[in-house]
Amino acid sequence: MRAALARRVEHGIFGYSAPPEALRTAIVDYLSRRHAWQVQPDWIVFLPGVVPGLHLSARRLLAADQHALIPTPVYQHFKRAVELAPRPFTEIPLVLHDRRWVFDLDALRKAHTASTRVFYLCNPQNPGGTVFTRQELTQLAALVPDCVIVSDEIHCDLVLDPAARHVPIASLAPEISKRTVTLMSANKAFNFPAAGCAWAVIEDPELREAMSADVRAHVLPSPSVFGYAATLAALTQGDAWLAAQIDYLRGNADLVQREIPLPMARAQATYLAWIDCSSLKVDPYELFLRGGVALSPGSQFGAPRFVRLNFGTQRARLRQALQRMQSAIRSAG
Amino acid sequence: MRAALARRVEHGIFGYSAPPEALRTAIVDYLSRRHAWQVQPDWIVFLPGVVPGLHLSARRLLAADQHALIPTPVYQHFKRAVELAPRPFTEIPLVLHDRRWVFDLDALRKAHTASTRVFYLCNPQNPGGTVFTRQELTQLAALVPDCVIVSDEIHCDLVLDPAARHVPIASLAPEISKRTVTLMSANKAFNFPAAGCAWAVIEDPELREAMSADVRAHVLPSPSVFGYAATLAALTQGDAWLAAQIDYLRGNADLVQREIPLPMARAQATYLAWIDCSSLKVDPYELFLRGGVALSPGSQFGAPRFVRLNFGTQRARLRQALQRMQSAIRSAG
Repeated sequence: MRAALARRVEHGIFGYSAPPEALRTAIVDYLSRRHAWQVQPDWIVFLPGVVPGLHLSARRLLAADQHALIPTPVYQHFKRAVELAPRPFTEIPLVLHDRRWVFDLDALRKAHTASTRVFYLCNPQNPGGTVFTRQELTQLAALVPDCVIVSDEIHCDLVLDPAARHVPIASLAPEISKRTVTLMSANKAFNFPAAGCAWAVIEDPELREAMSADVRAHVLPSPSVFGYAATLAALTQGDAWLAAQIDYLRGNADLVQREIPLPMARAQATYLAWIDCSSLKVDPYELFLRGGVALSPGSQFGAPRFVRLNFGTQRARLRQALQRMQSAIRSAG
Repeated sequence: MRAALARRVEHGIFGYSAPPEALRTAIVDYLSRRHAWQVQPDWIVFLPGVVPGLHLSARRLLAADQHALIPTPVYQHFKRAVELAPRPFTEIPLVLHDRRWVFDLDALRKAHTASTRVFYLCNPQNPGGTVFTRQELTQLAALVPDCVIVSDEIHCDLVLDPAARHVPIASLAPEISKRTVTLMSANKAFNFPAAGCAWAVIEDPELREAMSADVRAHVLPSPSVFGYAATLAALTQGDAWLAAQIDYLRGNADLVQREIPLPMARAQATYLAWIDCSSLKVDPYELFLRGGVALSPGSQFGAPRFVRLNFGTQRARLRQALQRMQSAIRSAG
């Protein structure tokens, strides 16, 4: 990727630019090769990031009085997007089942109203780490038959569990594809958010127009030319690097599980551990911060008794963090 | 700039990043050195582009029923920003005076209502090329004493007229600074919109908050790390390059004036010629397009009898375009 970016710098011309056709083709090939999902090049809408895409979806796919369903706990920008739009919403709790965070389907059924129009999905789940199965996704889609599904799949290339496989919800069936907006980016797996490029895959022309208009009008900027170049390099030349990366992250995930004596779900995907600190008597975020480790407070995701650990780092640094966390846990016990 | 970008690529880490403090300092130094404008580092709000900044201003500085004043003709994104917000607005015609496009002050006085809240300014003017004088700017600010002034000054470093000097309207007086949002970027003078970085200078904390909240919430993305790096290089190491560039553009501006037998104002700034084609009997955009030159149609700016020529190109190519335009004019005559 560095070589690709260096070539783009050497090119020397940084005037107005459109997304390269080669990138559309590369995304189509990548989705087919890696996720067994056949899409058309013109279903792709380039966005400057997945989070601006979440905000856009809340503002453009929901009328002012239309209602959304959001899982909880979840990456904070889902809720913020709907709150700032602002649109009415209900949070659907995820529940632990067999050490995986899955939807409470009864809660989902009850929360679904006549005005519900968008169902937000985060798959693989952040912070829970769940890779939803084909069967679970089919069931979810069936429970919101009249909803647009906005599916953030930015962690789809970070599946650590060898028994799990990422299934894009839109790939399940034509009927589901027609009502799904899938948000994706190579920023996360290849860690270049500072270059910045994302895209939505949207089969339905009306949904696509709703998600495109603001980019076309420059209300939202397009990705930078460096974001395009980095994404093209990642998708076409990144497989070996990514395989090694996943191997390394699996080692880190195992280490976290072994060393932290607190309940946590299996991180089937992502580089995030979602740690249940209910057994500690104190605020866990403050406890670990005093102990020298700044975690993401669970309150950010709607669950203040939890913390989220990002283990996507060098193992030596992770070991040091885990030792500090062990000391902090002992001091609280 | 290429060296600076290459160094940033070599750095190899493209994770989440904040604007470098060095860039704030560089902007403060540059505004003082080049435009005799003293600002504080914390007045600077980074934006992904000037056009997203225009949209943001229409949505965040105007309530739904508050009214804006927009010059015409003007860069199409001013009007589009207010239309899409949507907010009520009145277009204030620019009139030719001594071969410069200046505001019709009577029209401005008449259009100003009790609900007028934002006055949009484009200085240097696009497409007209006017560099507004200190006296003109003082008069404009006095005519809209209760308005926020949103001033797009992206062409401020492309002043070609040796007798003219760019004056940031906010630099006129403390009272004006407190109600002005100045939109700026090095993208235009240094031609790297595909890397992408812009900023607003906003003294007033409330206005600053209104223009910052969406970036902080990631409704709008931040500039890419390459946009920061390119801007830093442009502002700290670009003076000699820019001086040579302006010299070259002056030669091009003179050539356009000499070769095109149609009325046009002096392009005091920008690399744009705003050409009055009223004497031609046909649609001028179509005429020149058939003749082999794709200009910007004046209709885009609200003046269909005009065309806008971008002369920011190699002189040989410009000569070729001008020859084709001459042939087209003869064919229409």
